[in-house]
Amino acid sequence: MKKVAVLMGSDSDLAVVSDAIKQLKALDIPVSARVISAHRTPDDAAAFAKSARADGFGVIIAAAGLAAHLAGVIAAHTTLPVIGIPIKSGALNGLDALLATVMMPPGVPVATVGVDNAKNAALLAAQILALSDDALAVRLETLKTEMADGVRRKNEKLQSEIETL
Amino acid sequence: MKKVAVLMGSDSDLAVVSDAIKQLKALDIPVSARVISAHRTPDDAAAFAKSARADGFGVIIAAAGLAAHLAGVIAAHTTLPVIGIPIKSGALNGLDALLATVMMPPGVPVATVGVDNAKNAALLAAQILALSDDALAVRLETLKTEMADGVRRKNEKLQSEIETL
Amino acid sequence: MKKVAVLMGSDSDLAVVSDAIKQLKALDIPVSARVISAHRTPDDAAAFAKSARADGFGVIIAAAGLAAHLAGVIAAHTTLPVIGIPIKSGALNGLDALLATVMMPPGVPVATVGVDNAKNAALLAAQILALSDDALAVRLETLKTEMADGVRRKNEKLQSEIETL
Amino acid sequence: MKKVAVLMGSDSDLAVVSDAIKQLKALDIPVSARVISAHRTPDDAAAFAKSARADGFGVIIAAAGLAAHLAGVIAAHTTLPVIGIPIKSGALNGLDALLATVMMPPGVPVATVGVDNAKNAALLAAQILALSDDALAVRLETLKTEMADGVRRKNEKLQSEIETL
Amino acid sequence: MKKVAVLMGSDSDLAVVSDAIKQLKALDIPVSARVISAHRTPDDAAAFAKSARADGFGVIIAAAGLAAHLAGVIAAHTTLPVIGIPIKSGALNGLDALLATVMMPPGVPVATVGVDNAKNAALLAAQILALSDDALAVRLETLKTEMADGVRRKNEKLQSEIETL
Amino acid sequence: MKKVAVLMGSDSDLAVVSDAIKQLKALDIPVSARVISAHRTPDDAAAFAKSARADGFGVIIAAAGLAAHLAGVIAAHTTLPVIGIPIKSGALNGLDALLATVMMPPGVPVATVGVDNAKNAALLAAQILALSDDALAVRLETLKTEMADGVRRKNEKLQSEIETL
Amino acid sequence: MKKVAVLMGSDSDLAVVSDAIKQLKALDIPVSARVISAHRTPDDAAAFAKSARADGFGVIIAAAGLAAHLAGVIAAHTTLPVIGIPIKSGALNGLDALLATVMMPPGVPVATVGVDNAKNAALLAAQILALSDDALAVRLETLKTEMADGVRRKNEKLQSEIETL
Amino acid sequence: MKKVAVLMGSDSDLAVVSDAIKQLKALDIPVSARVISAHRTPDDAAAFAKSARADGFGVIIAAAGLAAHLAGVIAAHTTLPVIGIPIKSGALNGLDALLATVMMPPGVPVATVGVDNAKNAALLAAQILALSDDALAVRLETLKTEMADGVRRKNEKLQSEIETL
Repeated sequence: MKKVAVLMGSDSDLAVVSDAIKQLKALDIPVSARVISAHRTPDDAAAFAKSARADGFGVIIAAAGLAAHLAGVIAAHTTLPVIGIPIKSGALNGLDALLATVMMPPGVPVATVGVDNAKNAALLAAQILALSDDALAVRLETLKTEMADGVRRKNEKLQSEIETL
Repeated sequence: MKKVAVLMGSDSDLAVVSDAIKQLKALDIPVSARVISAHRTPDDAAAFAKSARADGFGVIIAAAGLAAHLAGVIAAHTTLPVIGIPIKSGALNGLDALLATVMMPPGVPVATVGVDNAKNAALLAAQILALSDDALAVRLETLKTEMADGVRRKNEKLQSEIETL
Repeated sequence: MKKVAVLMGSDSDLAVVSDAIKQLKALDIPVSARVISAHRTPDDAAAFAKSARADGFGVIIAAAGLAAHLAGVIAAHTTLPVIGIPIKSGALNGLDALLATVMMPPGVPVATVGVDNAKNAALLAAQILALSDDALAVRLETLKTEMADGVRRKNEKLQSEIETL
Repeated sequence: MKKVAVLMGSDSDLAVVSDAIKQLKALDIPVSARVISAHRTPDDAAAFAKSARADGFGVIIAAAGLAAHLAGVIAAHTTLPVIGIPIKSGALNGLDALLATVMMPPGVPVATVGVDNAKNAALLAAQILALSDDALAVRLETLKTEMADGVRRKNEKLQSEIETL
Repeated sequence: MKKVAVLMGSDSDLAVVSDAIKQLKALDIPVSARVISAHRTPDDAAAFAKSARADGFGVIIAAAGLAAHLAGVIAAHTTLPVIGIPIKSGALNGLDALLATVMMPPGVPVATVGVDNAKNAALLAAQILALSDDALAVRLETLKTEMADGVRRKNEKLQSEIETL
Repeated sequence: MKKVAVLMGSDSDLAVVSDAIKQLKALDIPVSARVISAHRTPDDAAAFAKSARADGFGVIIAAAGLAAHLAGVIAAHTTLPVIGIPIKSGALNGLDALLATVMMPPGVPVATVGVDNAKNAALLAAQILALSDDALAVRLETLKTEMADGVRRKNEKLQSEIETL
Repeated sequence: MKKVAVLMGSDSDLAVVSDAIKQLKALDIPVSARVISAHRTPDDAAAFAKSARADGFGVIIAAAGLAAHLAGVIAAHTTLPVIGIPIKSGALNGLDALLATVMMPPGVPVATVGVDNAKNAALLAAQILALSDDALAVRLETLKTEMADGVRRKNEKLQSEIETL
Repeated sequence: MKKVAVLMGSDSDLAVVSDAIKQLKALDIPVSARVISAHRTPDDAAAFAKSARADGFGVIIAAAGLAAHLAGVIAAHTTLPVIGIPIKSGALNGLDALLATVMMPPGVPVATVGVDNAKNAALLAAQILALSDDALAVRLETLKTEMADGVRRKNEKLQSEIETL
């Protein structure tokens, strides 16, 4: 199976990004995570992106905050699907990272998920890989059913609390 | 090859969305486009999403403006990758559509591209399908090379104009 | 009397939504609250909305955060009045939920109250039901008078503190 | 049947507000429209709101731009449901009107619809009145069905255009 | 000397507004502070504003949060200068209050100061009254000189800390 | 009577600012208008502000766009009341000018009116001067009454148009 | 003298960027302008930046719209001062470009000027070069004086127009 | 070597600004830091700026919050490069300071860095001075290399943590 790369612009992003790594592992998807910075190690970022397809990666997840360029820089060097996670950090609470990630120019797409939503980045990567992996597709369907059941169970649990309000 | 669905919440969105359809056709990707509204034809939207995988779709692109729920509603009913195009319309110029598309809750991802950026939605869909289609991957690489060459040609053309400034 | 449904997209929303439930109970309005998710249990949401009028509901309050689609999804399936409470959560502090709730397309209205303002959602539901319930209308008038008296009492209490500033 | 009042803060708002009036008339709902300003004719606004219930009104729609206080001022003086339409005008394009209309303090709700969305204000008023008017409820259901059919017809019409892209 | 009225929409605003009261007292300006709500006690607000000039007030300061209408409602009923203090509260951190206070329609001005900036409201009121009170004008000039000296003293104090960085 | 100064940061602002000049003239208030730039002619701005009181000015209106510093710079050099008009210009439509004008630090107030709202700046200046000018106060009351009558006349005119919708 | 590079992400940016080129030429500063895209020709951008100092450049100006990464990408590869011009384009009017340009992570600065403010980028570059070029410093002082005189002349011209308002 | 001035609008800004001072000292750049306020000590600010070049300064860094005018006011009085640091403070979290610093009118540039990003202000100043100081240029290159190495070391350290997720 193709691997998923999880890149983060700073080691401090791991607190958020770990949700993606854990979700990918839970789905038995091989994952390789590393710190790589669009601005501090730009050559490493370019080199990684250029060889990613040949290195067996199928999807690249890139998380960054502030003027978040990481996903865009990676997407500039590959035609693999690149998923961007805008990280909430600094004074503007991730609005800067969201716009810097999603508003890419025509020709170089970044599949952007919500601010700090590492779990969705992992699920999106899994959905992409599942197109050619029926077993993974089944696992995703199961996850979706469990998620719905989880909502229903929570609803039942809440009823007694609601009664007493 | 798996098909790409291009959904738009209103027929007025076609002016933007046609860029996606044309780009997909140019890449020889089978595309099926339709108007379907999360709020006006919710059952059609749910039915479409539920059977999309069985109907041969691999990726669903959904474009909507204002409180753009279409991509999210589709994603609620499928584990196929869903790409959201926020459409600029109304007083808030697409900021509402962007936030309503990208800020999905954990568990139900939407791969969001920039406001009105239908071309990037098509390319992202192509990149996803290219993971199991080497010929398409080659076409995408070619497109990327041509895009770079296009920038270089424009640069050369501009030089004389720059001289005379 | 017709019932009011109070729906919340996540059990974590109860901390905010409980204000609505308590206010409705204080006004002797029958209320049924539940967790139901536009994205995780979309069929439950559609089924609920479709049968809500027949099930004796008069007004539906729907609270959700982030790309808050719950109120809109409910409104897509019913012609009962739907009141949306945008919930503050995540990096954007509820601005996303506000826009995703209020900027509905023409044809499918959601009566939106302020971010996290569950009390106002309950009062709005009560005002709606009071149109055909004179006793409830009187209770609302009494509440309004008491509220004004409360402001005046607080003003009097504050005067000594103001003196000593 | 109870009447719907349609108030606008300025005569220039009629261009937007006329959609509400026409929609209400199309639904055979008695409507009374007038220009009344929270800031220029505050006593008129207060007097109108205070006697609105006795004057046979069931719902009040109030449209205003900029620091839009009209809906809030009306809501301060009545326990009838008040629907606010934020009007797009001036440098901030209606974001000011939206926030000034929707972020009401606890105790005084305004049912806010999207910026310039007069049609939704009318439909919301109709939904409210339909709670005690089965014939109107039927008309709203019919309208909803027609709206869905309209989307489907537009989809069919668009197919040939999509073919030729 | 004419009095300054300091109105606040909620008793919780006193924590901010007390800065204005203290500053006015420090300048020997007679001040009358009270809780009065544009939405909960609208008649009290209108009555206060209508008689304010006759009651000996020269300037009215009005502080409110959320969809802050208090200053605008007061300004609707008087031709005295009205100063608005937008209060930071709720999910939107005072941006709503700022826009709801400052974006008044032509004809009804509110002199708006920065969010939570009660001290500036007091100083502005003092500057207005000082136009016909030379002693007060002198006190304001003294204050301005002291403020400049304060900055210079702080600068000197900081130098040793800067040395050791 | 004390004069009102109307300063604008650029000659292109006159299109907006002329409303203030005309309104002041209509109220028989002596007005002196000039182009003076906080950034291009800072010494002129400082000199003007420092001598403004001695030169017979009672109120200073300052209009500027973008990072609008003019009102703040003037306020730094005088204890006269300074009214700021944020001008809509450039990419951010005046939001920059609004924040740069209103969010002054404690100690140096600027009385800010809405974006481009030159008329309100003039009326606020008139209200300030009217505190010691009973005839002007009467003219302002008359204006307020006429404004209310204007709204009522417009309402009457609109009724036939509303009928035919 | 060291040269100034003026880079633009798209040939459509020349309409804005030409102001920078003209200003630099007017100051007799050698300028080299080219189209180079952070996303479409990333290797060209990196190569340019890496050799810029050796190639005789002293300052690099980079203009880009949307998720504007150009200035940041250049700054990642050089220790020359990089000036970023956010370009207004697309639905968000340059707010995206502004945040994507200015909110760089610690360690990789971009000197950002206002949206579309190409003239200021050129003047900033000139100010930087003038630190070691006294003749250029004199030209900049002259320009500043002329700019002030221009404001004063415009003021004089406007006086007759103001008279007749 | 030319000195760098670090100005802050309030002594409370030192907590942020100290990063700039420390970075400059670490690069052996002579630095002079002081509190100086555009609004409270405007004459000091003007005097400082006017004589800055003659006093041996090469670059001026100015940090301020709210309606941050300090950098702009300094830039109005000098042709030295001025770097603005918008400080996060107050209700709007530095968005006001960012816009008030960066959106300068044509003719008076301020080189703006990210909100609270004092380190980048220092590095930008160093990059500017390094244009005529080869030893400093070498130190900056070394810093850039160390920064890249730091990212790589952090990446290695994180791998074991990632393994165990």
